[in-house]
Amino acid sequence: MDVLSNEVIDQLKERKSVRVFTDQEVSAEVKQILFASAAEAPTAGNQQLYTILDITDGELKKRLSVLCDNQAFIASAPVVLIFCADMLKWLDAYREAGLDHRPAGAGDLFISMDDALIASQNVVTAAQSLGLGSCYIGDIMENCEAVREALCLPEMIFPAAMLVIGYPTQQQLNRTKPARFPMDFIVMENTYRRRTGEELREMFRKDTEPAGKSFEEWIAAFCKRKYESGFSREMTRSVEKYLDDYRRK
Amino acid sequence: MDVLSNEVIDQLKERKSVRVFTDQEVSAEVKQILFASAAEAPTAGNQQLYTILDITDGELKKRLSVLCDNQAFIASAPVVLIFCADMLKWLDAYREAGLDHRPAGAGDLFISMDDALIASQNVVTAAQSLGLGSCYIGDIMENCEAVREALCLPEMIFPAAMLVIGYPTQQQLNRTKPARFPMDFIVMENTYRRRTGEELREMFRKDTEPAGKSFEEWIAAFCKRKYESGFSREMTRSVEKYLDDYRRK
Repeated sequence: MDVLSNEVIDQLKERKSVRVFTDQEVSAEVKQILFASAAEAPTAGNQQLYTILDITDGELKKRLSVLCDNQAFIASAPVVLIFCADMLKWLDAYREAGLDHRPAGAGDLFISMDDALIASQNVVTAAQSLGLGSCYIGDIMENCEAVREALCLPEMIFPAAMLVIGYPTQQQLNRTKPARFPMDFIVMENTYRRRTGEELREMFRKDTEPAGKSFEEWIAAFCKRKYESGFSREMTRSVEKYLDDYRRK
Repeated sequence: MDVLSNEVIDQLKERKSVRVFTDQEVSAEVKQILFASAAEAPTAGNQQLYTILDITDGELKKRLSVLCDNQAFIASAPVVLIFCADMLKWLDAYREAGLDHRPAGAGDLFISMDDALIASQNVVTAAQSLGLGSCYIGDIMENCEAVREALCLPEMIFPAAMLVIGYPTQQQLNRTKPARFPMDFIVMENTYRRRTGEELREMFRKDTEPAGKSFEEWIAAFCKRKYESGFSREMTRSVEKYLDDYRRK
């Protein structure tokens, strides 16, 4: 059974989010490896439909930490990367080549988002293997107008994912990775089947039991904290703004 | 400089798309490792906002190969996985807990897509480390109505990514991985800056020179084949259909 365990799989398993970093800088050489790992990721038609913004300016990090739901640790992260879905560079190339082209649509945004996310996850994996911790910040999709201004994003450039990266503190290394759902609730054969109430209660046992809470209590608290939060509503408002760029005819 | 090269980074670099597979089956044990690697991926608030459909039915594979722009190799791939963005299971849990909740919006779809893509890329990386080849099929986002019917997708379940996986043929192993853009054209510091015509011409030299084509020729042929193709237009139509589910008030 040796073949079923290897260094790569171990690293994927061990990786957990890190939000607190030591003062150790991330060297330019290491950053180059991270970028190269992004570039090596699968990409639709070899188009690399993304641009990576490497946020090195301290004031800009601070501004982003406010815009991303006031998460102070973003401002002090050694590396802050934003993976922008970027179909625009191809449209610019089409125009440079003298072509008329159809207006971009939501499908073009989605395939670019795919590329950006896939590339970002290669960075997470490469970082882990180099002893670096990372955390995704989904909140970068919020506050469209202010984020656009801060990052000088033209129309159609969508900040699909943000990563903060650095060397983890001992406390972060000691933190237990949160348990995932049992696999039976994640994988389905051939077709989708909606989970029954009973199955959902069973599925959430990994959260409710350790917390000593009933299903109703645990779910209500989570729903209030996440789904019904201001940042969650803001995400939809903001994403719809970005989508508007892909609806111009 | 030893630390800058390791098994994980080598594997990320070596990985290339594989579309032709040997007859060798992928064992149940290996599939479990792939699923576990997906589950270990970063996920927003530990929600695992995705469901993986493991397509084992031969007829269904064949149907999907037609629906995904008639790519016959999909039908004969040993493993076909569809990563569905799935906010629905959480909404179902909220309702099971007796909660009223706000309607889901585009932001909820996007954060679920992020989760699905991030998980899928862990599968790609795990597969590579086990000697398996893989290929993303973005076309799964097309033909909303027929794909929904084939996979029994309820409203709000969005097939964000499809992967075909198997053991590569020797011919596929020998294939050269397509060159990526020079890093200077992919990474920008702090803010986005639109590429000039001159920069775009320079950026595409890695494609135009080996092809012995002018920038105009190469770009025009690519644009016609990809961006102005039927499947590309269909992707936007179909994605807008899926988005409609997230606009019900």
